[in-house]
Amino acid sequence: MAIRIGILGYGNLGRGVECAIKHNQDMELAAVFTRRNPASLNVLTQGVKVYRAEDAPEKKNEIDVMIICGGSATDLPKQTPEMAGYFNIVDSFDTHAKIPEHFAAVDKAARESGHVGIISVGWDPGMFSLNRLYANAILPGGKDYTFWGKGVSQGHSDAIRRIEGVRDAKQYTIPVDCALEAVRSGSNPELTVREKHTRECFVVAEDGADLEKIRETIINMPNYFSDYDTTVHFISEEELKRDHAGIPHGGFVIRSGRTGWENEHNHVIEYRLKLDSNPEFTASVLAAYARAAHRLNQEGQIGCKSVFDIAPAYLSELDGAELRKRLL
Amino acid sequence: MAIRIGILGYGNLGRGVECAIKHNQDMELAAVFTRRNPASLNVLTQGVKVYRAEDAPEKKNEIDVMIICGGSATDLPKQTPEMAGYFNIVDSFDTHAKIPEHFAAVDKAARESGHVGIISVGWDPGMFSLNRLYANAILPGGKDYTFWGKGVSQGHSDAIRRIEGVRDAKQYTIPVDCALEAVRSGSNPELTVREKHTRECFVVAEDGADLEKIRETIINMPNYFSDYDTTVHFISEEELKRDHAGIPHGGFVIRSGRTGWENEHNHVIEYRLKLDSNPEFTASVLAAYARAAHRLNQEGQIGCKSVFDIAPAYLSELDGAELRKRLL
Repeated sequence: MAIRIGILGYGNLGRGVECAIKHNQDMELAAVFTRRNPASLNVLTQGVKVYRAEDAPEKKNEIDVMIICGGSATDLPKQTPEMAGYFNIVDSFDTHAKIPEHFAAVDKAARESGHVGIISVGWDPGMFSLNRLYANAILPGGKDYTFWGKGVSQGHSDAIRRIEGVRDAKQYTIPVDCALEAVRSGSNPELTVREKHTRECFVVAEDGADLEKIRETIINMPNYFSDYDTTVHFISEEELKRDHAGIPHGGFVIRSGRTGWENEHNHVIEYRLKLDSNPEFTASVLAAYARAAHRLNQEGQIGCKSVFDIAPAYLSELDGAELRKRLL
Repeated sequence: MAIRIGILGYGNLGRGVECAIKHNQDMELAAVFTRRNPASLNVLTQGVKVYRAEDAPEKKNEIDVMIICGGSATDLPKQTPEMAGYFNIVDSFDTHAKIPEHFAAVDKAARESGHVGIISVGWDPGMFSLNRLYANAILPGGKDYTFWGKGVSQGHSDAIRRIEGVRDAKQYTIPVDCALEAVRSGSNPELTVREKHTRECFVVAEDGADLEKIRETIINMPNYFSDYDTTVHFISEEELKRDHAGIPHGGFVIRSGRTGWENEHNHVIEYRLKLDSNPEFTASVLAAYARAAHRLNQEGQIGCKSVFDIAPAYLSELDGAELRKRLL
């Protein structure tokens, strides 16, 4: 029987989960839940019902895993523990500093209800975290580097849009090639924020806006841009729509470290993602961990977990013998 | 209390494990076991005793995990199940076709004795396998590519050394750059064996040997070289010692696959290793999985496992809360 998945929140990420379910033959989309008017949503999957978010608990016997597709700032801290009271859940909570308290809240709710909750699933946190852990365990005493991009940063794009005279904007984070090469060489360089990434902004200004003032405001914006070399391009609304509609992202996790009795040998471990669609890739990771949540709960496990706590085999449709035969 | 590690077999891999233990503060080398005369071995670690391999069972209460550092062809199929009767064990069994029967033999012995055995640990099988599994689970319907090198292939070097007139030789497997780039582009190319790797051989010939005949014998050798573009360089014994003493290796695991309702977005996941010392890196992975074997057994688990069955957190010295704080 297929794993019955519920989606709570139908934005880019929720739609990405819907697409991921289509690609996984052992899953089916059971229902979508939204805080908007359910009648206003057109989901892609034929015949799937849309319900109000607050009615989710009533569907608890019809859903094996609820994938919670809200934002980390305000949605997930409330929704995830709440939903863990009724469902096995997976979320993509990514506010690093608040992971301990989120973990504790989800753990409490999931233990009380007898469910599994897997939090902070995606690529960072998620696949990048896993690669940091594996590489740290193999090369103790080494050095970690994470580069992001080339990709769209939603937060930085939003910050530009809030500037007076800006109608729309898109910001790309770009890793610096020579910094990447220095890290790959195994020389363990010390790199400043400015040396690791550049920022490129495509801005649509209001008619008659002071472009030089907008540019100055962007490149001097503290936290967001002032520590980086930032380039600002003013383009038309048509160009923005035509050339910058996508949400690509990706990045690199690299660890280099030494082995040998006298540290005589160097090693470099590199993990790289190149993603056409950030939300769809994140959603694909969420779907794989939904499979794990369902299986773990069927085995009697409960409580909150992160990607660190899940044996890789739980992510795959294949059984142990097949996995060893085909992928080991 | 430190995890007490035993090493069975003191070649390049065994010495690598000894070095890895030095880099892991929660481990100590308890003893080395050898089929050679124990008095003939000079181990690097001060004060560590060397015993005959056949006396290992007597030390079963002094060792938490035995890391078995023999060869896959004849040593491990016999040694690993035997040792799993007395110890938690880790090995690097890498004969892909025989993994199912090796798994079954180790599982039986480990269950009967109440121990954990983790087989086929290293980088391929091992870290490469893990990356295949994760990438397959995230991007179903995608395509896998594995490239090896640049690195020394022991088997191919040995094959050259058996040719008449050859005194010594070293063979490098080299991934073809344009094939790698084609894979990274996400175009999912169909690649022949010849298109993926080239082979480069450095050969020391006997005085007066027929060099052209040696070259012909190498490049036409079935299975080993005839399917590849192979370059042969004749060099002096001094040059071989000076320029080709190392055992570097590495490679790439790449999966690309599509997401979206109509498969409209492409993604590329790449894992790369660049290793100065193949045996020392393999040994470092073995050490991390020895930690996992010990912990799992302390929790009451028994039987044979592969890297697919081990939750990543078991590899790290850090506890769950610290891992979430530092690496998630």
